Amino acid sequence: MIKEINSKDNNKLKHAASLKESKYRKEYNEFLSEGKKSLDMALKAGNVKEIFTVKPIKEVPQDITQYVLKEDLLKKISSTKNPEGIVFVCNVVNRKPKKLNKVVYLDHINDPGNMGTIIRTALAFDYDAIIVSEGSCDVYNEKAIAASKGAIFSLPILHGDLDEYREGRQVIVSALNEKAVDIKDVKKPQSFILVVGNEANGVDEAIIASADIVTKIEIKNIDSLNVAIATGILMDHLR
Amino acid sequence: MIKEINSKDNNKLKHAASLKESKYRKEYNEFLSEGKKSLDMALKAGNVKEIFTVKPIKEVPQDITQYVLKEDLLKKISSTKNPEGIVFVCNVVNRKPKKLNKVVYLDHINDPGNMGTIIRTALAFDYDAIIVSEGSCDVYNEKAIAASKGAIFSLPILHGDLDEYREGRQVIVSALNEKAVDIKDVKKPQSFILVVGNEANGVDEAIIASADIVTKIEIKNIDSLNVAIATGILMDHLR
Repeated sequence: MIKEINSKDNNKLKHAASLKESKYRKEYNEFLSEGKKSLDMALKAGNVKEIFTVKPIKEVPQDITQYVLKEDLLKKISSTKNPEGIVFVCNVVNRKPKKLNKVVYLDHINDPGNMGTIIRTALAFDYDAIIVSEGSCDVYNEKAIAASKGAIFSLPILHGDLDEYREGRQVIVSALNEKAVDIKDVKKPQSFILVVGNEANGVDEAIIASADIVTKIEIKNIDSLNVAIATGILMDHLR
Repeated sequence: MIKEINSKDNNKLKHAASLKESKYRKEYNEFLSEGKKSLDMALKAGNVKEIFTVKPIKEVPQDITQYVLKEDLLKKISSTKNPEGIVFVCNVVNRKPKKLNKVVYLDHINDPGNMGTIIRTALAFDYDAIIVSEGSCDVYNEKAIAASKGAIFSLPILHGDLDEYREGRQVIVSALNEKAVDIKDVKKPQSFILVVGNEANGVDEAIIASADIVTKIEIKNIDSLNVAIATGILMDHLR
């Protein structure tokens, strides 16, 4: 169905704008995403609730409403400079992972850009799921969604404590300490959880102490890699 | 020397604020950076022109002026939410690389966050320099500087065309085409330039056509990796 929106006071538009805030995302269990490529992935995954667009899009099923509006109104709900004329509201879908043999655990990841990039990378390396610790930033933050490039619509996202998931799985922690083994020398376990940590403080000390394997990437000249880069390199070794 | 600034109309403060714009960075050959860790690296490298800080810093040489000011004034020149109370003006230093055996060429990289992260990663993997193509974003953009985490003060940054540098070096291009060889099967040449490309369009077709080696990272489920992640993984293989 196609409808027009001509006013900034339109209720649908105001509802969508409210999803820029974490508390409303949690209240409604919805979030915003942008752009044609992400829309295609979200449609395929069945996450799309409604679409705001500067011109009607052909391939959208009839039962999803397209609100057609002027670009200056669309800007009220877009977060990027160039939203490609498409912003859409998504339902949060709790996808059940088919298995949990290759998982990443994000321990207090702060930056939504890093979060989204790790989600994109995890999907590309065929990880089964991502587990987000309490105290991490919101997975559905608009910057995380943008950086995930649609991967958020395929990868199962779990929340919770590492201990809920560790039974039967080797815990591999990324940490720059003396005992850490070079990732090149780590033999991939059959079933594992890769733990990466906070941008400033790294992985929690108690998690490091209880790890099955502590690993690191050999670097020079500088203290650390960006956490999304480190995660990408570790995942490349642990495919 | 320590001086106080009490007004937003102070000339030194206004000059620093002007460096948020690319045209003034180019005009003065200066840029802004923030935080204690970056300051330490910049001092060591000899890039620091003057410092704006909420309280005097002990380890700063006498000949570098510290302007002490209130936090609300500091916010006029900071770009992060938490500038740690320190923003400083740096001189652009054209560092000559000692050698050019391991180099990254950035072909039309658009996003300053990606640019800065690649600079940080290149330093961590001991690359000799980075070459920035025309049409890439400004290396001295505040987001690029922040993402580089001080690496900008150590890694030689060159500008120009790939052809100026290719003599005697193998050109290795990252591209998702059919002929591309899995990076795992690429033997590291003694002297090479790794070329990575634009976020939306990849590496220029003419560069791909003239490459010595075209390589890719095997991925599933999604079109591509983020360019900084891909570069990190390629660099890890090509240390």
